[in-house]
Amino acid sequence: MPIDYKSSGVNLDAADNSLTRIKALVKTTRTSQVVGDVGLFAGAFRLPEGKAHPILMASTDGVGTKLRVAMMAGKYDTVGEDLVNHCVNDLLANGAEPLFFMDYYGCGRLDPEVQEEVIKGLVRGCRNNGVALLGGETAEMPGFYGDDEFDLVGSIVGWSSEEDMILGKDIKPGDVILGLPGNGLHTNGYSLARKVIFEHAGLKVDQFVDELGGTMGDALLAVHPSYLEVVRAIRKEVTIKGIGHITGGGIEGNLNRVLPEGCKLKIDYGSWDVPPIFNLIQKLGPVDPQEMKRVFNLGVGMAMVLDKAEALQIRDKVFAGYRLFNVGEIHKS
Amino acid sequence: MPIDYKSSGVNLDAADNSLTRIKALVKTTRTSQVVGDVGLFAGAFRLPEGKAHPILMASTDGVGTKLRVAMMAGKYDTVGEDLVNHCVNDLLANGAEPLFFMDYYGCGRLDPEVQEEVIKGLVRGCRNNGVALLGGETAEMPGFYGDDEFDLVGSIVGWSSEEDMILGKDIKPGDVILGLPGNGLHTNGYSLARKVIFEHAGLKVDQFVDELGGTMGDALLAVHPSYLEVVRAIRKEVTIKGIGHITGGGIEGNLNRVLPEGCKLKIDYGSWDVPPIFNLIQKLGPVDPQEMKRVFNLGVGMAMVLDKAEALQIRDKVFAGYRLFNVGEIHKS
Repeated sequence: MPIDYKSSGVNLDAADNSLTRIKALVKTTRTSQVVGDVGLFAGAFRLPEGKAHPILMASTDGVGTKLRVAMMAGKYDTVGEDLVNHCVNDLLANGAEPLFFMDYYGCGRLDPEVQEEVIKGLVRGCRNNGVALLGGETAEMPGFYGDDEFDLVGSIVGWSSEEDMILGKDIKPGDVILGLPGNGLHTNGYSLARKVIFEHAGLKVDQFVDELGGTMGDALLAVHPSYLEVVRAIRKEVTIKGIGHITGGGIEGNLNRVLPEGCKLKIDYGSWDVPPIFNLIQKLGPVDPQEMKRVFNLGVGMAMVLDKAEALQIRDKVFAGYRLFNVGEIHKS
Repeated sequence: MPIDYKSSGVNLDAADNSLTRIKALVKTTRTSQVVGDVGLFAGAFRLPEGKAHPILMASTDGVGTKLRVAMMAGKYDTVGEDLVNHCVNDLLANGAEPLFFMDYYGCGRLDPEVQEEVIKGLVRGCRNNGVALLGGETAEMPGFYGDDEFDLVGSIVGWSSEEDMILGKDIKPGDVILGLPGNGLHTNGYSLARKVIFEHAGLKVDQFVDELGGTMGDALLAVHPSYLEVVRAIRKEVTIKGIGHITGGGIEGNLNRVLPEGCKLKIDYGSWDVPPIFNLIQKLGPVDPQEMKRVFNLGVGMAMVLDKAEALQIRDKVFAGYRLFNVGEIHKS
């Protein structure tokens, strides 16, 4: 009997089914900058006017093993939003505004319904950030991923200019670090968190946990916030000298990336309220406090470095619904 | 005993080791447009001057299960080049020139030596195409990918303009389709090929095959060519009305994407030499000839649609080392 593509594990009919579902969703993210139709070999995006010397900024990321929690909970429509917001925050950390996004969905066996849920989250994230979902790739790789496994990867492209980029160059001793509150693990540290919570402590994903005021799954799947509006609002009022997007590596690992020579961090751990999910993980492990600091954001979504006077000027104001808090200051190294 | 990140399967020391190896390689792809240093949250790229109204073009892709052949052969330094060239060709198909690239490397257990080999190929591909490797992400996802498994995803960003984009709009009946020769499967159809060659026919990856004049592994790992130089050279002489980058879907599946209403394809199968790897797969399956056409490029790397007179003008010339050949023509539908 002849061998065909389907018998080798690649189902082009499922791919067609999925593509039809996705196309309609993707169209809702179209902005006036998008050129042409879905289906080109490359997506096309007219660069907006308004910057004499544009600098493109770009970042690629995955959702990591937060995907496993989504799979355990059977809730697939939020990880895409996590991914878009994570990428938007990476741009913001260097002073860029997002323009468009592309996704990659690799899987063992293409389930069009699961993929549609994933894309729904991606599309929600794109729309909320005014970002066009310009392209994407679906790869069915039998025997590569497990049957029900998938990975989700995203790339974002934004723009800035020499004047608007945030690179940390002007940071000096005496500057103050303000934090923007996070709502959970965001997209980092899930391997450790899953090991502690599910393997070691034996909790279930649908288990109600008093300290969290909800289920374990809901707490772990809380969507990584986009700080686009709040960073925009703050930049209208003051100069942000440096930003750490607090992901793997923790507060110090990420803020150290933007410090110039001669500066070091003094983080005032204990000066802000750490969300209960982190205390729970630390207790259940136990996990060493130093390891907690190295792996998790501990409730600091973004950490911004400002001149002290400007920090005092804005610290007690509310920007786009966010209250700022003290994280520490810059010392001489 | 406290639980730490390493015991949960994420080895930050391996990540540091890998990052050190990679950074030096990545730096060799820096172009004068790259701003700042490796280590920003987002890569920064100064848009070149020279286009009044730039249109950014972008594409995301994976290597697919060609990776499995690389793993079987223990040869990891070419799949990255495949990926870059594939993405460059996607841009070319719509008339864009490449600017920068980003990669994602997801794996079960990070092996810095394997990753370094993979990045070597990526870097070679970037350098050959004059593309900066602007950023990337490495994700160690234990229990997600198998221990020795990885996936490799890339995103490319290029640019074009209203005048330079190739969208197929002016294609009309009577136009001629010319092909650029491929050198093998490129990056598509590997699930079917592997099933036929390794599972069904039981060939080995290091087996010498007379018809191929080399080993099975070498034939399957032949690097997907970049058609950047040849397309540039042809465009200096004539107008290319439409281009199909022949990937999954075959010649017709990909060329149909660029045809305007009222046109259909007439492909003259048999009018060019099909590389022996395809005949071998068809025979070993057997695979139905229709299925071969739907899955594989059959030796046509890119198919270009030109006005008949212009096609005749260039058909017998050599561009950047490539000889063109007849693939078919456009008929009225």
